[in-house]
Amino acid sequence: MKQVSTKFRGRVITVNVETVPLPNGTVADFEIIHHPGGAAVVAIDAQDQVCLIHQYRPAADGWVWELPAGRLEPGEPPQETARRELIEEAGREAVHWQSLGSILSSPGVFAETLHLYLARGLSECPLAREPHEVMEVHWMPMAEAVRRALQGELRDAKTIIALLRAQAVLDGRGSPA
Amino acid sequence: MKQVSTKFRGRVITVNVETVPLPNGTVADFEIIHHPGGAAVVAIDAQDQVCLIHQYRPAADGWVWELPAGRLEPGEPPQETARRELIEEAGREAVHWQSLGSILSSPGVFAETLHLYLARGLSECPLAREPHEVMEVHWMPMAEAVRRALQGELRDAKTIIALLRAQAVLDGRGSPA
Repeated sequence: MKQVSTKFRGRVITVNVETVPLPNGTVADFEIIHHPGGAAVVAIDAQDQVCLIHQYRPAADGWVWELPAGRLEPGEPPQETARRELIEEAGREAVHWQSLGSILSSPGVFAETLHLYLARGLSECPLAREPHEVMEVHWMPMAEAVRRALQGELRDAKTIIALLRAQAVLDGRGSPA
Repeated sequence: MKQVSTKFRGRVITVNVETVPLPNGTVADFEIIHHPGGAAVVAIDAQDQVCLIHQYRPAADGWVWELPAGRLEPGEPPQETARRELIEEAGREAVHWQSLGSILSSPGVFAETLHLYLARGLSECPLAREPHEVMEVHWMPMAEAVRRALQGELRDAKTIIALLRAQAVLDGRGSPA
């Protein structure tokens, strides 16, 4: 049986030390950070431009380029999170939604799953932002964003993966589950 | 000035609540998980097969496909970490090393940077594993690994990104910094 000792319960994360029986019969302690999970969206407009948010991130000690994204609210389906964040951060609604699968941010210690989407058929709507969200909205040609993802100029994991999976869908190289 | 209150100091991570002045003049509290960072390696053999580790991960509640990877030891250059993990986990040394850039696992709350490498010119050597590392070593055609990364069958963020950047290097579509 797994034994759990909670070390910190915050607004966003819960940190446990969990004593886990492993498939090889040994038992070991793991520091595990629990997180509600999130969703991110590759939103592409009629000119093949993708929305990228330039956001100040204290955890990265600076500005980071990211897709519109956010945390799942309790009970919220991930696609609804993506839809909400696209409105709040970018001021866009989308008609066509497609899953780009999900990813594990860092499965050694961090139990965060992120759900990725491709959104097209965009229209403008009012945006709504929180005071601790310091960000600028940019629109960049998709080909340029993909180049930056491949060549290391983008650094946020979810953003890189969602852009490259979206490009594969656009190229007809496959559609994730 | 930033104010830091440490909530948990573990073997791997340190969890703080940090009160941070933002570029827009407001001040806000952020839960930030500090981590020493890590390195991962796309190791490709003479038959264009890539090493993938099938590893039991309590934080993901199951088995995850990942590249050979691990944490930076104090003062260790990231490429040395990648070299060490390739030996320890896969039993391979490599002659040719190339950077695939670095990534931020989840810059909203998790201050982990991962450094990615492409390694070629492989030779066998004895492997060395720790008892809490429950893993199987596999070799998979690179084209199949890339397909799985794009179509959502691989879920570990660093693994997906490093494979897709490595394929771009092999295709001559660019070499990250």
